[in-house]
Amino acid sequence: MSQTTGFIGLGKLGLPIAEKLIEGGFSLRVYNRTTQKAASLVARGATAVKTPSEAATGGQAITIVSDDRALLEVASEEFCEALGTGLHISMSTVSPVTSRTLAERHARFGGRFVAAPVFGRPEAAAAKKLWICMSGAVAAKEAAKPVFDAIGQGVYDFGEEVGAANVVKLAGNFLLTAAIEAMAEASAMAEKNGVPRADLLNMLSSTIFNCPIYVNYGKGIINSQFEPAGFAIPLILKDMHLVQKTASDARAPMPMVNLLIDRYLTMLAKGRDQYDAVGLVLGAAEDAGLQW
Amino acid sequence: MSQTTGFIGLGKLGLPIAEKLIEGGFSLRVYNRTTQKAASLVARGATAVKTPSEAATGGQAITIVSDDRALLEVASEEFCEALGTGLHISMSTVSPVTSRTLAERHARFGGRFVAAPVFGRPEAAAAKKLWICMSGAVAAKEAAKPVFDAIGQGVYDFGEEVGAANVVKLAGNFLLTAAIEAMAEASAMAEKNGVPRADLLNMLSSTIFNCPIYVNYGKGIINSQFEPAGFAIPLILKDMHLVQKTASDARAPMPMVNLLIDRYLTMLAKGRDQYDAVGLVLGAAEDAGLQW
Amino acid sequence: MSQTTGFIGLGKLGLPIAEKLIEGGFSLRVYNRTTQKAASLVARGATAVKTPSEAATGGQAITIVSDDRALLEVASEEFCEALGTGLHISMSTVSPVTSRTLAERHARFGGRFVAAPVFGRPEAAAAKKLWICMSGAVAAKEAAKPVFDAIGQGVYDFGEEVGAANVVKLAGNFLLTAAIEAMAEASAMAEKNGVPRADLLNMLSSTIFNCPIYVNYGKGIINSQFEPAGFAIPLILKDMHLVQKTASDARAPMPMVNLLIDRYLTMLAKGRDQYDAVGLVLGAAEDAGLQW
Amino acid sequence: MSQTTGFIGLGKLGLPIAEKLIEGGFSLRVYNRTTQKAASLVARGATAVKTPSEAATGGQAITIVSDDRALLEVASEEFCEALGTGLHISMSTVSPVTSRTLAERHARFGGRFVAAPVFGRPEAAAAKKLWICMSGAVAAKEAAKPVFDAIGQGVYDFGEEVGAANVVKLAGNFLLTAAIEAMAEASAMAEKNGVPRADLLNMLSSTIFNCPIYVNYGKGIINSQFEPAGFAIPLILKDMHLVQKTASDARAPMPMVNLLIDRYLTMLAKGRDQYDAVGLVLGAAEDAGLQW
Repeated sequence: MSQTTGFIGLGKLGLPIAEKLIEGGFSLRVYNRTTQKAASLVARGATAVKTPSEAATGGQAITIVSDDRALLEVASEEFCEALGTGLHISMSTVSPVTSRTLAERHARFGGRFVAAPVFGRPEAAAAKKLWICMSGAVAAKEAAKPVFDAIGQGVYDFGEEVGAANVVKLAGNFLLTAAIEAMAEASAMAEKNGVPRADLLNMLSSTIFNCPIYVNYGKGIINSQFEPAGFAIPLILKDMHLVQKTASDARAPMPMVNLLIDRYLTMLAKGRDQYDAVGLVLGAAEDAGLQW
Repeated sequence: MSQTTGFIGLGKLGLPIAEKLIEGGFSLRVYNRTTQKAASLVARGATAVKTPSEAATGGQAITIVSDDRALLEVASEEFCEALGTGLHISMSTVSPVTSRTLAERHARFGGRFVAAPVFGRPEAAAAKKLWICMSGAVAAKEAAKPVFDAIGQGVYDFGEEVGAANVVKLAGNFLLTAAIEAMAEASAMAEKNGVPRADLLNMLSSTIFNCPIYVNYGKGIINSQFEPAGFAIPLILKDMHLVQKTASDARAPMPMVNLLIDRYLTMLAKGRDQYDAVGLVLGAAEDAGLQW
Repeated sequence: MSQTTGFIGLGKLGLPIAEKLIEGGFSLRVYNRTTQKAASLVARGATAVKTPSEAATGGQAITIVSDDRALLEVASEEFCEALGTGLHISMSTVSPVTSRTLAERHARFGGRFVAAPVFGRPEAAAAKKLWICMSGAVAAKEAAKPVFDAIGQGVYDFGEEVGAANVVKLAGNFLLTAAIEAMAEASAMAEKNGVPRADLLNMLSSTIFNCPIYVNYGKGIINSQFEPAGFAIPLILKDMHLVQKTASDARAPMPMVNLLIDRYLTMLAKGRDQYDAVGLVLGAAEDAGLQW
Repeated sequence: MSQTTGFIGLGKLGLPIAEKLIEGGFSLRVYNRTTQKAASLVARGATAVKTPSEAATGGQAITIVSDDRALLEVASEEFCEALGTGLHISMSTVSPVTSRTLAERHARFGGRFVAAPVFGRPEAAAAKKLWICMSGAVAAKEAAKPVFDAIGQGVYDFGEEVGAANVVKLAGNFLLTAAIEAMAEASAMAEKNGVPRADLLNMLSSTIFNCPIYVNYGKGIINSQFEPAGFAIPLILKDMHLVQKTASDARAPMPMVNLLIDRYLTMLAKGRDQYDAVGLVLGAAEDAGLQW
């Protein structure tokens, strides 16, 4: 791999992904707004650069930033020009509209764009267990394959419409948040009827709900593990607002997402900005007069 | 096993459970309101009786009927007297209040009562793959063990408060219905943004949601498999009403269960009484203008 | 008026209604579970009796009790027999089903039954400003007219189906509770954007919402006047449950009533049983982090 | 009045307001995107101009356009410069943020800005019966008084924070929409229990809900008067989205507004874009299997 790969965004997910890439033999040019976050990568051979555009000069760039606005700023005209006919692999959780905007922006410089949001919390990224959703032009997805192989345990292809993978990522984040709320309501009902939520959730997540979301978030609920956040409330709220807007623009009502947003707004109104997404459960608990 | 076991309720779940018991060497006295349903069991050695009380005379009885009212009628004073100091294993999905009522009723005759609702659709029962939740006195649960071994793949003990297993069963049915609604809303959002629900649900149920509920109901959603019903809408609606009441009596609001009930009411208002529980998804789809 | 009229139920509304009847020249035989409540009426010429049935012997009886169960107990077979071919005017807020049950029970003794729930808080009753909804047989409603004239400012006739007036009363209580919630949400949004709820509600209830519900409950919201209760939370919650059940039995989803019930459950879960119905507003306020 | 007043926006509300101003002696310079809408005003003495900025040259301008984007485009830097130290009276239903943005934009040119959204449908405007909410600097509001006197029946002052009147307007539109939904749910419940919605709504809007919103929208519901729209669904939906965003940004959950938005999304998903806001009621009706 003679090519260097730009890597922009060293947040909770970005950092372990970058590590996997270094381990996979990629030569990285890393950029982060807060520069000290790059130190550990530089110690392992990465080059720190001062702008996203500098990171893009090697012909391939990966971005994983916090929201649509940040992504649109990072992937500026200048960035697209620097990347030229190269490949931009966009891993942020953003709206499909933003992917379409960026695909067009790159196209003006001959560049290719793949939307490739991932599922998995920071621990999963560190264990190379991310699941990747991709959409975009066939050749672009093909070119992105080595990156995906280095960081995840599987890739799902959602076709050539570049926003499709973003839609799936948003849908998945909605589904997991809905599962947390459902577990919370069920647990509140159970506890107020004398059944500890640990008994309830351990049973269900061992049987008909024995999958990572119920197992992992179930543990978080049982242990009231709200801090430190792997995925903080303002971030999940941003995602739920993206879901709401993506649905609303398409004229698809989603009553559950409204409920989830309201729960998170209440968490923020009560000053719990630093809680993890699983802190959602305090809504149902407190409405029932429970202290978790 | 010299003792005979009464078996009352040969519905969609009851029948395959009774078959497993016969296969497991139990000698059954079977009762069902609609008598012809007993024919296949009689052919395999069971004895058909004419009243629930007759079924109870052997000292052990299993009931699995459609709702609280039916159970309270079946397990009448007369029935309790007939059972005497025997054991009543109650597998219906009913309210915890009904279990408490029946435990007291049996106690007056020296009888024992175990609440033992099960998770699993008819296919799971036929494959001996039910999950059993139990609650009640320790000795009673111990006595019920051979029955559980013959029909399920695992038993979870929720302690001595006899209604606890019912609470768990209601919570589980709520969780699965909530999962269906969440998949429906996500699918409607996805399809109105150009992503087929099959692509979305196949990916998610292979990865972070790879558990029976998402896999099996996901298939039902993808294939619009609403009939014939394994678990018909009036039955799941009855369960959701039990959840709502159990929560409300304990002063625990459950906004999601309200939404689920409203969806099912609309299904019934549109004449879809014979649809399976998964038919719930038509609510989100039709509100978004989709035909599934 | 040689006939005496039984009057059963001296609660917050019953007492001022009974006073209006005495002022209107009615000769009352009053019954209340808590007997001391009859004292002020006895001082004004009423006769206190020891059972509902005794109250009914004069050929006309008015009941206004707290719920369906209380009404069905008061208007027992014995009561119906005592009333004989007389007239029962039922003013309680109960389900239409209960009215149908009672109409049939009276019919077996040749008696007549009018459902006549009223709109108005205790102050309105004291000012002879109740609004009365009636349903039942034409002759029965005609016979009840002098009673209505003595206590209210207007009567609305909902036909001969005896439960119709109950449906209207439930619908009205739902509408007023929904209005309180809407004012609460609007007020929370306004205050968190710097506009005092007094400014908002005073303006709206002086203009496009200048009607008693918005004016009166608006004042309660502005002044955080939650105690003492004119209409306590457990009573309004009972009504909302009746609305929910009446709608659900008819397969009509009412998402707003679900929300209202959840709000009240949370009030109870937080120990606010003694608050007035307007205390509902604390739900929206506290979810937004406001202290009202 | 030697000064001429620019008037921008001749929509359903704008046109009758402009007429009242002409009747009140104002000399108008009118601008509308669709120029033929100005014809009737020109016939009565108004001058049609070709850009918003031309309309602003007389030192006073009134804008009443469809949304935030349109208002921000109309009140461009060029417009603000043309208005100079004059007064901009902004009557559109927009977010408080937009008012703050425009107040600052005008301030850079020494201009004054008053937010003055109005309550009332086109008929009310034609009858000079609008209610006006105003906020902004004291002197600016004072200067706007002759305009308000010419078009409305009353003005409410919400202080100097320029977005306050917008918050009140949004809250009011939310309240009225919530009232429509509540009437719809109550009516569906009533009709499925045999009580015609006309009987229910006529009674309630004559008594405890005898105010314009319930009276007027009640009639619309009774008569299924969905077209032609006085206030079309896409417009009310835009307002509800503004309410949702204004609340969400302030961390105030509003579950009712979510429900209203979902209802309107379904109306649009079913192709009813041209229906009036009252068409909202079809959601509750159709969910209950009713055809209104």
